[in-house]
Amino acid sequence: MQREAVRELADLGQQLRVDAVRAAAAADSGHPTSSMSAADLAAVLLARHLRYDFDDPAHPGNDRLILSKGHASPLLYAMYRVAGVVDDEELLTFRRRDSRLEGHPTPRLPWVDVATGSLGQGLPVGVGMALAGKRLENAPYRVWVLSGDSEMAEGSVWEAAEHAAYEHLDNLTLIIDVNRLGQRGPTRHGWDLDAYARRLAAFGWHTIEVDGHDVEAVDAAFAEASATRSQPTAVIARTRKGRGVAQVEDREGQHGKPLPDADAAIEELGGPRFVRVEVSPPPAVPARRHPAGGPLELPRFETGDSVATRDAYGQALAALGSAREDVVALDGEVGDSTRTEFFAKAHPERYFECYIAEQQLVAAAVGLQARGYVPFAASFAAFLTRAHDFVRMAAVRRAGINLVGSHAGVAIGQDGPSQMGLEDLAMFRAVHGSTVLYPCDANQTAQLVAEMAELTGVRYLRTSRGGTPVIYGPDEEFRPGGSKVLRSTERDRVTVVAAEATGCLVTVEDHRVQGGIGDAVAEAFADGRPVPRLVRLGVQHMPASASPEDQLHLAGIDAESIAAAVRLLVERAVVR
Amino acid sequence: MQREAVRELADLGQQLRVDAVRAAAAADSGHPTSSMSAADLAAVLLARHLRYDFDDPAHPGNDRLILSKGHASPLLYAMYRVAGVVDDEELLTFRRRDSRLEGHPTPRLPWVDVATGSLGQGLPVGVGMALAGKRLENAPYRVWVLSGDSEMAEGSVWEAAEHAAYEHLDNLTLIIDVNRLGQRGPTRHGWDLDAYARRLAAFGWHTIEVDGHDVEAVDAAFAEASATRSQPTAVIARTRKGRGVAQVEDREGQHGKPLPDADAAIEELGGPRFVRVEVSPPPAVPARRHPAGGPLELPRFETGDSVATRDAYGQALAALGSAREDVVALDGEVGDSTRTEFFAKAHPERYFECYIAEQQLVAAAVGLQARGYVPFAASFAAFLTRAHDFVRMAAVRRAGINLVGSHAGVAIGQDGPSQMGLEDLAMFRAVHGSTVLYPCDANQTAQLVAEMAELTGVRYLRTSRGGTPVIYGPDEEFRPGGSKVLRSTERDRVTVVAAEATGCLVTVEDHRVQGGIGDAVAEAFADGRPVPRLVRLGVQHMPASASPEDQLHLAGIDAESIAAAVRLLVERAVVR
Repeated sequence: MQREAVRELADLGQQLRVDAVRAAAAADSGHPTSSMSAADLAAVLLARHLRYDFDDPAHPGNDRLILSKGHASPLLYAMYRVAGVVDDEELLTFRRRDSRLEGHPTPRLPWVDVATGSLGQGLPVGVGMALAGKRLENAPYRVWVLSGDSEMAEGSVWEAAEHAAYEHLDNLTLIIDVNRLGQRGPTRHGWDLDAYARRLAAFGWHTIEVDGHDVEAVDAAFAEASATRSQPTAVIARTRKGRGVAQVEDREGQHGKPLPDADAAIEELGGPRFVRVEVSPPPAVPARRHPAGGPLELPRFETGDSVATRDAYGQALAALGSAREDVVALDGEVGDSTRTEFFAKAHPERYFECYIAEQQLVAAAVGLQARGYVPFAASFAAFLTRAHDFVRMAAVRRAGINLVGSHAGVAIGQDGPSQMGLEDLAMFRAVHGSTVLYPCDANQTAQLVAEMAELTGVRYLRTSRGGTPVIYGPDEEFRPGGSKVLRSTERDRVTVVAAEATGCLVTVEDHRVQGGIGDAVAEAFADGRPVPRLVRLGVQHMPASASPEDQLHLAGIDAESIAAAVRLLVERAVVR
Repeated sequence: MQREAVRELADLGQQLRVDAVRAAAAADSGHPTSSMSAADLAAVLLARHLRYDFDDPAHPGNDRLILSKGHASPLLYAMYRVAGVVDDEELLTFRRRDSRLEGHPTPRLPWVDVATGSLGQGLPVGVGMALAGKRLENAPYRVWVLSGDSEMAEGSVWEAAEHAAYEHLDNLTLIIDVNRLGQRGPTRHGWDLDAYARRLAAFGWHTIEVDGHDVEAVDAAFAEASATRSQPTAVIARTRKGRGVAQVEDREGQHGKPLPDADAAIEELGGPRFVRVEVSPPPAVPARRHPAGGPLELPRFETGDSVATRDAYGQALAALGSAREDVVALDGEVGDSTRTEFFAKAHPERYFECYIAEQQLVAAAVGLQARGYVPFAASFAAFLTRAHDFVRMAAVRRAGINLVGSHAGVAIGQDGPSQMGLEDLAMFRAVHGSTVLYPCDANQTAQLVAEMAELTGVRYLRTSRGGTPVIYGPDEEFRPGGSKVLRSTERDRVTVVAAEATGCLVTVEDHRVQGGIGDAVAEAFADGRPVPRLVRLGVQHMPASASPEDQLHLAGIDAESIAAAVRLLVERAVVR
């Protein structure tokens, strides 16, 4: 590299530092020191490796940049100023009400594909995006993930490392900003770059160790990463937190706060700069089109037959996949149980086996939807709790994903409580903008699988293991949010499940009573109106092994228990 | 080893296989093939390495055995028959209602310290138990974790691998039963033992690869594990699923079901055997006693002062640690934020830094409580979602743990939604047997920290980042489950938060409206009585960055919004 180019890159790094200091000073909060350690890495990436059309964030050839260490948002926003899409005035709105420049990046900014801020999520989601590029789009873009060193302690990172190497994602580069200091003090491995390299190499990655403030070395490392074939690459960079300002550089106790003397720091960094960089354009790529599939031919089930809703899900998803080329499916190595295997057999090129790694399962789904696909990801309902933080962040990301949890409730029988989904409704209902679907029969399930693909936000479908009677015919229409009166006479004095008509409600659910259907029904009345008499039947004990029938009885949610509860309610209540 | 001893061990392995086949046949369900692959490993462990007094499971010198692949429960129960504590009649009650021999092991059996069945949890919890032995008890017991190969894909395993090596847990042995077949087909790495060994070695483990059906080699491996100093050891064993029965051995599609022809299989395995083994006794160890600490001197806060409840938690926990030697604390590398640092400074020998690995944080707490300690584990409330499956399983384990989530709600301000605990109440309320505490001021927090240590089950304390007024004096008493009327006059027409007196209720919470305080109040009325007029105020939008005051206002939960809601309710309602 020419000496002049080196000087320019170093200058650019200083500009990013100055802007991080300025933004945090204006906000009187934020993480400037975490930004300063990675500033040279960011400068080299932006000026010499990223291929991105900032005027067209949806360009199919654009590289993708994920700031996994989302607290270093001032660095990202400073990069946007260098690219000319955020001006100086906006930069200084950092963390203010109504500003797009939030404390941690969100997709309110058009160049942010996925929100970050929960550590250890950038690489997992990046794997999903790289998978899309390599296996589905055949597109030349690279996925760059800028990660902190602290977050390498998260298990989700290692689920992702495994997934990326297994899928030979040579379009993925992980850049680790090893500044050796976490929030509260030194990290476990400090500046032992080898510790990270050994681990990643063992997982099948190509690794490069580098001085993260030597822009020539960083440039060479990124070039090597781009040239590496059939393996993902990790660039492990030794850096200094707060680099460039003596009062904070490599010092403990300087995490997540503005610099003590911002003016002096800016001066020490050489003062404000206003360099703009022409970021390399992406290669021309034909716009991706999903060829029209066949017509949607959902499975049809005979009224009165006994069919497990998980079977209906699997068959419906396979049918949906035939009708829509943008539908993809993922499973956590239980596709024979969840019945995602129907899809896997019909559309193997759009099926992603995630093995027993539920965080990566959901993260990959989030990454795939960020590339325009409609993912369905399934595991046992109980084990989706493993991915709770990814589900929560999916809402922050405005990600449209379909999650499917099988083996709901005590009705699974002998396997016992570790395998029973008893908390899933509570978990998904509390996720912002979510839609929770718990179909009662196979025809309803099939229709809802098709319907949920059209919704926004996190959609959750709960399925059961055992066969249940088909109640509705295959032509009956169902829409999320509606309700059906299954049976009604003028003499009715109690409504079982939902409807205000009688003033007496009984809700029944194979789930904990907290946070589930009973709560949902109660909430529907909670705007200051008196709530009707409401009895919630649900699981209130710790189940053990028993037959499905015994389980339902022991939980007090079988037919006999429901009838008894209704009788008691009618006898005790003065019914309208 | 003598030829006779080898033959006896091989025979013992066959007995374990036969019993697994018999138990699953009797139950008409279960996982015999997953038991058969690990039978020789189990035979060698039980007959030659485990030191355990089955008559005294609480013996402080007992080794601990965790069956991480909990679905192989028939193998564990067959081992108990060999040890003479489960008889043949009980073995055949496997998976029946009221049997202790559940589908997956639970502590209803006195020799099971921690329930398993959610994969990837055995090693993380085992690390907690080994930590107790090494750092707290100075006891000579070993922790043996028998794991499947599929579950090595779980990130939690790698959080644990990191933690174990970092703490030099040479009292911990991980045995991996590499039978190459998961539930649905081949695992990612098949019989590539090196793949596992490379990864674990890179994480700092001693590794041994072995033929898992060669009892002499297995015996030598276990001896080497026990003799290894300053590193945990992994014995990586190549095995065949369904070993010994041709109709199922190493065949796909044979997971989680009884053998097709149990009688023929038993004959092929040499028929039933009734060998008993005298398991080696544990070494004599003085009973562990926690020396009495000082008197409990909780911090006292002045009424009217502004104090963050997280500060009160930290100070109270440090005080509790001075009064009780069995109290230990853990944190996910945010102790300066959660304020666990008060404890860490006062009692460094009882503080465990878990870095940014929330699954391991909770798992280590579960392991420590299994050894008789009273753990408090803290992180941001938002990030405890990461450990949801461990929290759920803690209930199945009947584990008494204290979890503390800081930075509750939108009130944290500028950091934005990724850092806000908005779903934690819903998550913890739905956990069986949990106690959820959300104190309103510092004195209440301090008292509840002491109280929660005495409770059973999962206890959750929710704390806030910013200062809040001290409302109650330091001598006011608080008990979990009670309620206080803060202000009451005869003219009251609305009750804010909870109490039936007026017939009009307003609940306010810095949490999603789903699953939180509003739902808890509604549930308190839900036994068939009409619920009073109830207005729930909570967070219904996706927040962004803003000041704490703005956040509360935008969410409609500041004082002004509450007053407006009350006025509306009083105006609209016909109030009693």
